[in-house]
Amino acid sequence: MAPRYTPSLRSRLAPMLLFLQLGFIVIFAFYTEIQSRGNDYGKTFSNIYPEFQDVNVIVILGFGFLCTFLVRYSFSASAFNLLVAVMATQLAIILNGIEYNRGKIRLDLRSLVEAEMCTASVLISIGAVLGKTNPVQLILIALLEVSGFILNKWVLQTLLRVWLLNSIMVLHIFGAFFGLMLTWILHREGQFEKEKFDHKTGLFSMLGTVFLWMFWPSFNSVLVDDGTPGRKLGVVYSTYLALAVSAVTAAAVSMLSSPKGKLNLIHMQSCILAGGIAVGVSMSVVHQPWEAMTIGFTAAVVSSIGYRYLKLHMLFAFDCHDTCAVLSTHGLPGLLGWVAHLLLKIKDCDDHTTAIRFAVFHICSLLITITLSLSMGIITGLLLKWNLWRPTQDKKCFDDQAFWEFPHLAVRK
Amino acid sequence: MAPRYTPSLRSRLAPMLLFLQLGFIVIFAFYTEIQSRGNDYGKTFSNIYPEFQDVNVIVILGFGFLCTFLVRYSFSASAFNLLVAVMATQLAIILNGIEYNRGKIRLDLRSLVEAEMCTASVLISIGAVLGKTNPVQLILIALLEVSGFILNKWVLQTLLRVWLLNSIMVLHIFGAFFGLMLTWILHREGQFEKEKFDHKTGLFSMLGTVFLWMFWPSFNSVLVDDGTPGRKLGVVYSTYLALAVSAVTAAAVSMLSSPKGKLNLIHMQSCILAGGIAVGVSMSVVHQPWEAMTIGFTAAVVSSIGYRYLKLHMLFAFDCHDTCAVLSTHGLPGLLGWVAHLLLKIKDCDDHTTAIRFAVFHICSLLITITLSLSMGIITGLLLKWNLWRPTQDKKCFDDQAFWEFPHLAVRK
Amino acid sequence: MAPRYTPSLRSRLAPMLLFLQLGFIVIFAFYTEIQSRGNDYGKTFSNIYPEFQDVNVIVILGFGFLCTFLVRYSFSASAFNLLVAVMATQLAIILNGIEYNRGKIRLDLRSLVEAEMCTASVLISIGAVLGKTNPVQLILIALLEVSGFILNKWVLQTLLRVWLLNSIMVLHIFGAFFGLMLTWILHREGQFEKEKFDHKTGLFSMLGTVFLWMFWPSFNSVLVDDGTPGRKLGVVYSTYLALAVSAVTAAAVSMLSSPKGKLNLIHMQSCILAGGIAVGVSMSVVHQPWEAMTIGFTAAVVSSIGYRYLKLHMLFAFDCHDTCAVLSTHGLPGLLGWVAHLLLKIKDCDDHTTAIRFAVFHICSLLITITLSLSMGIITGLLLKWNLWRPTQDKKCFDDQAFWEFPHLAVRK
Repeated sequence: MAPRYTPSLRSRLAPMLLFLQLGFIVIFAFYTEIQSRGNDYGKTFSNIYPEFQDVNVIVILGFGFLCTFLVRYSFSASAFNLLVAVMATQLAIILNGIEYNRGKIRLDLRSLVEAEMCTASVLISIGAVLGKTNPVQLILIALLEVSGFILNKWVLQTLLRVWLLNSIMVLHIFGAFFGLMLTWILHREGQFEKEKFDHKTGLFSMLGTVFLWMFWPSFNSVLVDDGTPGRKLGVVYSTYLALAVSAVTAAAVSMLSSPKGKLNLIHMQSCILAGGIAVGVSMSVVHQPWEAMTIGFTAAVVSSIGYRYLKLHMLFAFDCHDTCAVLSTHGLPGLLGWVAHLLLKIKDCDDHTTAIRFAVFHICSLLITITLSLSMGIITGLLLKWNLWRPTQDKKCFDDQAFWEFPHLAVRK
Repeated sequence: MAPRYTPSLRSRLAPMLLFLQLGFIVIFAFYTEIQSRGNDYGKTFSNIYPEFQDVNVIVILGFGFLCTFLVRYSFSASAFNLLVAVMATQLAIILNGIEYNRGKIRLDLRSLVEAEMCTASVLISIGAVLGKTNPVQLILIALLEVSGFILNKWVLQTLLRVWLLNSIMVLHIFGAFFGLMLTWILHREGQFEKEKFDHKTGLFSMLGTVFLWMFWPSFNSVLVDDGTPGRKLGVVYSTYLALAVSAVTAAAVSMLSSPKGKLNLIHMQSCILAGGIAVGVSMSVVHQPWEAMTIGFTAAVVSSIGYRYLKLHMLFAFDCHDTCAVLSTHGLPGLLGWVAHLLLKIKDCDDHTTAIRFAVFHICSLLITITLSLSMGIITGLLLKWNLWRPTQDKKCFDDQAFWEFPHLAVRK
Repeated sequence: MAPRYTPSLRSRLAPMLLFLQLGFIVIFAFYTEIQSRGNDYGKTFSNIYPEFQDVNVIVILGFGFLCTFLVRYSFSASAFNLLVAVMATQLAIILNGIEYNRGKIRLDLRSLVEAEMCTASVLISIGAVLGKTNPVQLILIALLEVSGFILNKWVLQTLLRVWLLNSIMVLHIFGAFFGLMLTWILHREGQFEKEKFDHKTGLFSMLGTVFLWMFWPSFNSVLVDDGTPGRKLGVVYSTYLALAVSAVTAAAVSMLSSPKGKLNLIHMQSCILAGGIAVGVSMSVVHQPWEAMTIGFTAAVVSSIGYRYLKLHMLFAFDCHDTCAVLSTHGLPGLLGWVAHLLLKIKDCDDHTTAIRFAVFHICSLLITITLSLSMGIITGLLLKWNLWRPTQDKKCFDDQAFWEFPHLAVRK
């Protein structure tokens, strides 16, 4: 009876996972070595390990539980998130390593953190197609998006000489547009009646959101070099203030834009992070608390309005069904952070020539990122439409029962 | 149709939040600067950042999920906690800064931690009125209590020359009595049938409690100066042992005092922290493990008995409906810690004069704290009774549906 | 009416807890002192405190929520876990201290961490009998197993001169076989219809699992001496990679071995940690990423197959009803790690004599551990069968209502 329910799992996903995993082990066996003499950046274990754990919490727990609000899809949301995260991280370690070193790839905490940043980008994209794809497709997305993201980073760094940190922090923009293209290509007609939340699942996703909110200062600051004393602390304060302002503003705008004048928990969850995301993109030029707070305020307003109006508009006008509203959660705040970066940098410049030169480079880097993410998204989407992957049937969408065993007694409570 | 349901939200809360938030941004713009040269206390980033995160977890996640046990009120409990926390923290940064510096307010991790301590005091008070107030009232409580708490701290430090840490650690006493006065003034007749917990919400609140329990050693030790080597470690051990003893004792007393001889999860959750709270108040004089453990034992006994008998007594005799039992959870252990501080300090004193002198100062500091918290609580309570804030109707108490949008399908499962 | 329901609680558990707790306080009063001059290992506060917190999170939160998947037993699973953990930790501090020092027992962060390792062993055993024992029995198990585990450690270190870390890391093997013996001795006929999970409890236990998964690198590395630079980092990388590979492999094998070709969440939760456990046992000889990954792969395969087939086989053939499948979750990966240790060490040896000598010692240490855990398990099991402890009735098994007060309204939702 098995194949009737989940044709994609046993015959597609299991062999694929085993094949990829064994492949990764072989690659690691030949091309990596553990960097055990401390790392190049002169940091000791206790300097960087707690921050690495914070990033790990964000990637595994935060993103994983953020999407558990779907009432029938919470097992899949949290477990597939874990699967995708570990596959993407392994691939990102390899590809990042190939990019930097010509010899053996050396593993250190910094390379793990950089890999988890790529993974975060993948997890953002997956938010857009969650519930409408099977795990085979999710793994394929992970592989292709990690490659695309690292390609984008390489292009920005090599052609435009963009600073490493900035080329990583476009992850929100890259992830959001990649995800949008995916969900546009994979569009299905019809309504999904299981796409809703209830009291308990809303609270699980609140838990994930709160973890993201609490540890976001670590996420933004972890790759900042502590060479300039206090630079890292500055990023922590900016992010903290921006997040605080975002939380207040998101609640206010959520109420004002609601037809019934009530709050919406999922809406709030989507928008309270906006400030942290925007500051993350522009952090190298944010030096004053009020700058961070203003960015947080604007990001939350843009994100909230985007959530309320743009999400439906995208669905009806462009056939983009964006499950977790990644466009307004990550895309718009990312773009806003990019604009803030541009404006603040120009304000700091003394002469026109430097300012214009910077503006041209900055605009080019955005265009390259968006072009690459859109085109990689379209390519990935077309590949995923292939029937070989046995896409989930419409009526099985947003339903854990398609993928998970339940005890027979769980139905009656 | 909106105003029929939540008159307080759109027309009161949203403008209030936006107004306050923009005001804070303006104040931050003119009066604060980021302290980026490391802070005065000679600590580097990795010395204090992990502890700051632990305090953040306690304030945002711990207190937020502690109150999710109410079966129909968990969205409000966790989300309003976040809103109140970020507003209170911003205000506390400003007021603390005005108190210390005459020039610009400098932001550093220590000022954030001190601000979060004031916030903890607010969150304790809010536990007493949870479910019976609307968010507008909660924000007002936050503003007034932060001001009152910082006034109290200032009075203790300026008039009585109380050590900074001791003047902060009265937060439990201040918060509990402030909250009691609030709930006394705002008393409503009638029973709230929605004030109960179920299997799942009890577990969410267990989660919050466990986070508080695990990270309480950080909460107590974070502001301890590491100048005296090992002082900070001593506080961590004392707190850990007191918490361990409290957990065991709370369970035993909960069973002994139950009419059916069973355990009560909410009761246990309220009392397992008692030891940590009491040790926090008296930590500057606790030097032996057994002292910490005895304080933990006594605190748990007092707190458990208070929960079982005092809570109902307060309701029937004094019209104080104390939702989260803040009196027995924070007030009594705080007082006990204060007594322990007095006794241990007198024991350590060699001559009578010093002992009596200390006792007088110590008793005065308690009297000032209680007087200030009671009077600020009464003032705040009277202000909140004003109809302008559109108090929640009785039948809408303890109900998320008054404030939150739910999907229409969530009702039938 | 109380005694009809829970004879074991008020008349047995409460006096027992109070008696033990007061006893511990007296012992701590006479025999311990706080080690406040920093500890012997030359570490400062911020070097070890964050890692200690990670271990604390694993013991209290991770193990506590891992077992909340039982639909009617989640209060007991999380709260009894906390009770057992704090009792076991206090006893372990005392017994570990007696073992090392002849004078006063000195408390430092390292002694707390070592005590929590013993506690982890107890929590593993308890997983095997969860739901079928009352809390009095659980506390007895804790006391006896801590003693047994520390005896085993002492034997290994004194007789065989096994390295401290290796003698602690057998905790998985010791805990699993101890638990198996317990559940074999305490076997009851009949099926437990409440032993199932639902959508929400599955998610709570996913939360616990994810915390274990995220912080396992800290658990493995916390006791590693940082004297050899990079050794600790090496353990972190190995553990991280092994866990990543385990997660992927566990999912694949879970699908392949399912009759319906679906995933099983509880199965996945049991097996994704296998790699971390196996690497933890063999960490002193794992130096290459691929070694860690291969161990992770094999451990996940063994653990998954064990979960699917061995669990039922143990029940029908040996009358061992293993609630949380501790044999396949901890026992088999632990044994595998032991084998990996043997093989890798022999590979590294240059001459035959050393290799054979090592093999003999290594095999002896396993035999001693298994013998001690089996015999202590049988003794404990026989003691627990005594009617004095009022074992739970069959129909009350896996049911929170036997131990916990619920509000009368919670039944109808």
